[in-house]
Amino acid sequence: MPADSFFTRTYTTMVKENELEKVEILGSKTIHVGYKISSHICEEIVSKEASSTYVIITDTNLVKAGHLDTFSAGIKASIEKHRPQSRLLTYVVSPGESNKNRRTKAAIEDFLLSKGCTRDTFIIAMGGGVIGDMIGFVAASFMRGVRFVQVPTTLLAMVDSSIGGKTAIDTPLGKNFIGAFWQPRYVFADISFLETLPEREFINGMAEVIKTAAIWNEDEFTRLEKNTKQFLQVVTNRKANGHVDLSPILDHIFKLVLESIKVKAEVVTLDEREGGLRNLLNWGHSIGHAYEAILTPQALHGECVSIGSIKEAELSRYLGILSPVAVARLSKVFSGYGLPVSMDDKLLQSRINGKVCPVDVLLKKMAIDKKNDGSKKKVVLLERIGKCYEPKASYVNDEDLRVILTDNVFVHPFTKPPKEFEVTPPGSKSISNRALILAALGKGQCKIKNLLHSDDTHRFER
Amino acid sequence: MPADSFFTRTYTTMVKENELEKVEILGSKTIHVGYKISSHICEEIVSKEASSTYVIITDTNLVKAGHLDTFSAGIKASIEKHRPQSRLLTYVVSPGESNKNRRTKAAIEDFLLSKGCTRDTFIIAMGGGVIGDMIGFVAASFMRGVRFVQVPTTLLAMVDSSIGGKTAIDTPLGKNFIGAFWQPRYVFADISFLETLPEREFINGMAEVIKTAAIWNEDEFTRLEKNTKQFLQVVTNRKANGHVDLSPILDHIFKLVLESIKVKAEVVTLDEREGGLRNLLNWGHSIGHAYEAILTPQALHGECVSIGSIKEAELSRYLGILSPVAVARLSKVFSGYGLPVSMDDKLLQSRINGKVCPVDVLLKKMAIDKKNDGSKKKVVLLERIGKCYEPKASYVNDEDLRVILTDNVFVHPFTKPPKEFEVTPPGSKSISNRALILAALGKGQCKIKNLLHSDDTHRFER
Ligand SMILES: NC(=O)c1ccc[n+]([C@@H]2O[C@H](COP(=O)([O-])OP(=O)(O)OC[C@H]3O[C@@H](n4cnc5c(N)ncnc54)[C@H](O)[C@@H]3O)[C@@H](O)[C@H]2O)c1
Ligand SMILES: NC(=O)c1ccc[n+]([C@@H]2O[C@H](COP(=O)([O-])OP(=O)(O)OC[C@H]3O[C@@H](n4cnc5c(N)ncnc54)[C@H](O)[C@@H]3O)[C@@H](O)[C@H]2O)c1
Repeated sequence: MPADSFFTRTYTTMVKENELEKVEILGSKTIHVGYKISSHICEEIVSKEASSTYVIITDTNLVKAGHLDTFSAGIKASIEKHRPQSRLLTYVVSPGESNKNRRTKAAIEDFLLSKGCTRDTFIIAMGGGVIGDMIGFVAASFMRGVRFVQVPTTLLAMVDSSIGGKTAIDTPLGKNFIGAFWQPRYVFADISFLETLPEREFINGMAEVIKTAAIWNEDEFTRLEKNTKQFLQVVTNRKANGHVDLSPILDHIFKLVLESIKVKAEVVTLDEREGGLRNLLNWGHSIGHAYEAILTPQALHGECVSIGSIKEAELSRYLGILSPVAVARLSKVFSGYGLPVSMDDKLLQSRINGKVCPVDVLLKKMAIDKKNDGSKKKVVLLERIGKCYEPKASYVNDEDLRVILTDNVFVHPFTKPPKEFEVTPPGSKSISNRALILAALGKGQCKIKNLLHSDDTHRFER
Repeated sequence: MPADSFFTRTYTTMVKENELEKVEILGSKTIHVGYKISSHICEEIVSKEASSTYVIITDTNLVKAGHLDTFSAGIKASIEKHRPQSRLLTYVVSPGESNKNRRTKAAIEDFLLSKGCTRDTFIIAMGGGVIGDMIGFVAASFMRGVRFVQVPTTLLAMVDSSIGGKTAIDTPLGKNFIGAFWQPRYVFADISFLETLPEREFINGMAEVIKTAAIWNEDEFTRLEKNTKQFLQVVTNRKANGHVDLSPILDHIFKLVLESIKVKAEVVTLDEREGGLRNLLNWGHSIGHAYEAILTPQALHGECVSIGSIKEAELSRYLGILSPVAVARLSKVFSGYGLPVSMDDKLLQSRINGKVCPVDVLLKKMAIDKKNDGSKKKVVLLERIGKCYEPKASYVNDEDLRVILTDNVFVHPFTKPPKEFEVTPPGSKSISNRALILAALGKGQCKIKNLLHSDDTHRFER
C-alpha cells in the first residue's frame, strides 16, 4: 500500500469543502474524493471531455433530494463556459434493484437514440450501484461503447460498485449475469451525497467497507473497530427532512471511503479482468449472494454480504485457516455498524417476512457464481484480518459448505475422551454456547473460561 | 500488404480438402481458411480451449442444410477424445435480421443460465452475420464476457462480419446500435458452407468482397473484374437440392475469401477500436446503411452497400477526388457480380415493392451513423481503385450529399459557352446520357465519343 499522507492530516484538520484527494487506478488519478465538490465535477467533465451531448442519468430519489437540479445547473454552466454548441439531456429511471433490468436498459437506449445521440455522447451516471451498474452497461454497449463517468451517491457505490469498471444488469435467473467490463473516465465520490442517504442504505454500505479492510488492511480494520458507536449515533439521528448531519464523523467517513477506494483501486489495477486477485474483493459474496438470491428484496446486498462474510469466515475457521478470535472480531465489527451477522438477527427477521434459507437452495444458488470453474465452487478464504489465504478464490467442497451453512449441527462426543479439559471461547456468544454443549456431552471434567451467554443453542436427545 | 505466396499456388493447384491457410489478426494466426475442414475446427476448439460446456448456437437454415448435425457430431467426438467430463449444448434460433434483437438475445442468455452455464462456457457461433453479430454480443456480455469462436457460413460473414470483433444487435430505431467489441478466439472460414448458401445470399456477400478490393487492393480488384461471368454461371446453376457445385470456381472463391480476410484482418490489427483507419471498411456503408434503413428487409445489406458504394464513389467524383473512369469500373464490377448499382435496377425494383428513398429521409438516416461526429456527417472517400483519400472517413456537407442522392439533377448550360467542345464519357450509360443532355442544352458544337445509350434520361423544359 502507498504511504498514507492523509491519515495524519484528517486527524489534525477537518475535511474542508472542495478539498480533493485523487486516487490512482489503472495508471491515472481518475478517482476524485471530496466533500461538496459538485462544481469541480461539472467543470472537470465538460472542460476535459469534449462532446456534443452530455447526458445525466439518475433515479427519482436523487431528483427528490435535489441532486439532479444541482448537477443540471452545474453542467449547464460549464457547457455555457466551455462548449456553447453542446447540449445537456437528462433521463430519470425508477429506483431500486428491480429496475436494473433489460427493460430499463432498453428504454434508456431508445431514449438516447430518439434524441439522435451518437458515439461522441458522454454519459454521467449519478446514483447508487443500481444506476452505476446499469448505466455503465448502457455506456459499454451503446454504439459499442461511449464514454461515461460514475458519480456514486451511496456509500456502497462510492467504495465499491463505481470503482473497477464492472457493469451489469440482472435477469430473472440471477443478478449481474449480463454486463461488461467498461471503465469510467472518472469516478467522483462526493461525500456530501451521503447526507441525504437513508439510514439503512448508509449501514448497508458499511459491509463493503468492513470487507475491504478485512481482506487487505488490518490498520484500517482496527480503526473501524474503534468507531462503531459514534457512527451509529450520527447516522441514525435524522433531521426533520430525513437528512443527516455528518459533521461529527466527517473525518471518519472521509477516511473510510478513501481507504476503501484505495484498496479497491489497487486490486483492480493489479487485475482488471478478474484473473484471480480481484476475486478477493468477493470475500463474503459467494455465500452472501446465495442468501441475497433468496432474501432479496427484503434484505439488502450489504446485509447479505455481512452474513456471507461471517459464514465464509467460519468456513475458513472450519478448514483450520482462520483463528476463532478473528471470526469473533469480524462478527463484532459487522454488528457494531448495525449489520446482521446471522439469520437469527432480530431486525433482519422482522424484515424478511419469515423467509428461510435451506442449505440445498443456498448451494444451488452458489453453483451459478461467476467465480466458479465449471461445477467446482470457489470461495475466498481469509487467513487473518487483513490477509487472504490465497491470492485468489479457493476451491471448496459442498460437504464443507454444508457444515457451515447448516443452522443446527449434530455434535458427537469424543469416543475416547480426555480426562480433563480447559477451553477459552473468544468472547463470542455462539462459540460459548457450543463449548457449553460440548462440555455437557463430554465425559470427565471441563473448565470453561471467558464464557458469554445467549439463548440460541438447542440440545437434541439421540 | 504481406507478400502473397498463395496467389501463384492457387493457379497451379486446385484447393484441396482439409488444406488450410492461416491469417494473422491482432498478433496471432487465429483465422483459419479452408475447404471441408469441419473436423479440424472441432478438434482445434476442444483440444485448445478447455471448458466444461461447449455451446453451438446456430439458426434453423443451418440445421436444415445438415451443418448442425456435422458439427455436433464433430464436437462430441472431440469431447470424447480430449475432455470426457465436458458437455455439448446446442441452441437454434429463427433466421434473419428480424431476429437479431434484444428478445432473441435475452432468450439465448436465459437458456444458458437455465443450463447452469458459468464463465468458463465456450460458445460456437455458427451462421451468417446475424448469428455472428448477435452471438458475439451474447458472448461479450454473458457473465461480462465468455470465450467464443466464429464459424461464418455465408460469404458476407466469412469476409466481413466474423472478422474484427464487432458484435451487435438491432433496435427498433436502427441496426447494430447496441453491441460490443469482443474478439473471437478463432474464426474458422470453411468454404464448403457456401455450397448450401442460396444464390441471392452468395451474390450479396460479393458486395463486401468488391468493397474491400476497391479500398485497399487494386490487384485483387482487377482479378475480380476478370471473373464475373463464370462466377454468375456457377452460382446461379443449382442442383436439385438447391445446392451449388463450386468446383469450377473453387480457386477463385478461395482466393477472394482469403484476400478479403487478409485486408480486413490487417486493417483491424492496425485499428482495433475504430480510431479512424478501420472506418475505411465502411466505404459504401454510410449511404448504403441509409438505403438499407428504408429498403430492409426487401433489399439485402450487400445490395444496399452496392448502391451506397456507387453513390459514395459519385460523391468522390463530384468532389473532384475520384476519376469518372474509376466510378465506371466500380459500377461494372458490382453489377457484373449480380448486384444493383442504382435504385433503377430492375431486379431490385421487383423486390422492393415500390418503396422509394427520398433524399431527406436518406440524410436523416445518415445522421445517426456511428462514424459521425456529433451532427457532422462523415463518409469514406475513394481516391482511386485500391486507395482511399484519407486514412479515415472525411467530413461531408449535406448539400454535396443532396446532389448525389437526388435522382434527377437540373442541368444548367454555361452562361458563357465555349465555341467547340469534345467529351469522351467512360463507357457508362448514365454518364453518356448526361453528356448528351449537356450537348443538347449547350450552344455551339459538341462532339461526343464512345457513347453508350440507355433510356433513363429525362429532359425538362424550364
Ligand atoms: N459493479 C460492481 O463492482 C458492484 C459492486 C457491488 C455492488 N454492485 C451493485 O450495486 C447495487 C447496489 O447499489 P446500492 O446499494 O447503491 O443501491 P441503489 O443504487 O439501489 O441505491 C440504494 C437506494 O438509495 C437511493 N439513493 C442513492 N443515493 C442517494 C442519495 N444520495 N440520497 C438519497 N437516496 C439515495 C436510491 O435511489 C436507492 O433507492 C446492486 O445492484 C449491486 O449488484 C456492483
Ligand atoms: N460485425 C461486423 O463487422 C459486420 C459486418 C457486416 C455485416 N454485419 C452484419 O451481418 C448481418 C448480415 O449477415 P449475412 O448476410 O450473413 O445474413 P444472415 O446471417 O441473415 O444469413 C443470410 C441467410 O442465409 C442463411 N444461411 C447462412 N449460412 C447458410 C448456409 N451455409 N447454407 C444455407 N443457408 C445459410 C441464414 O439462415 C439466413 O437466412 C447483418 O446483421 C449485418 O449487420 C456485421
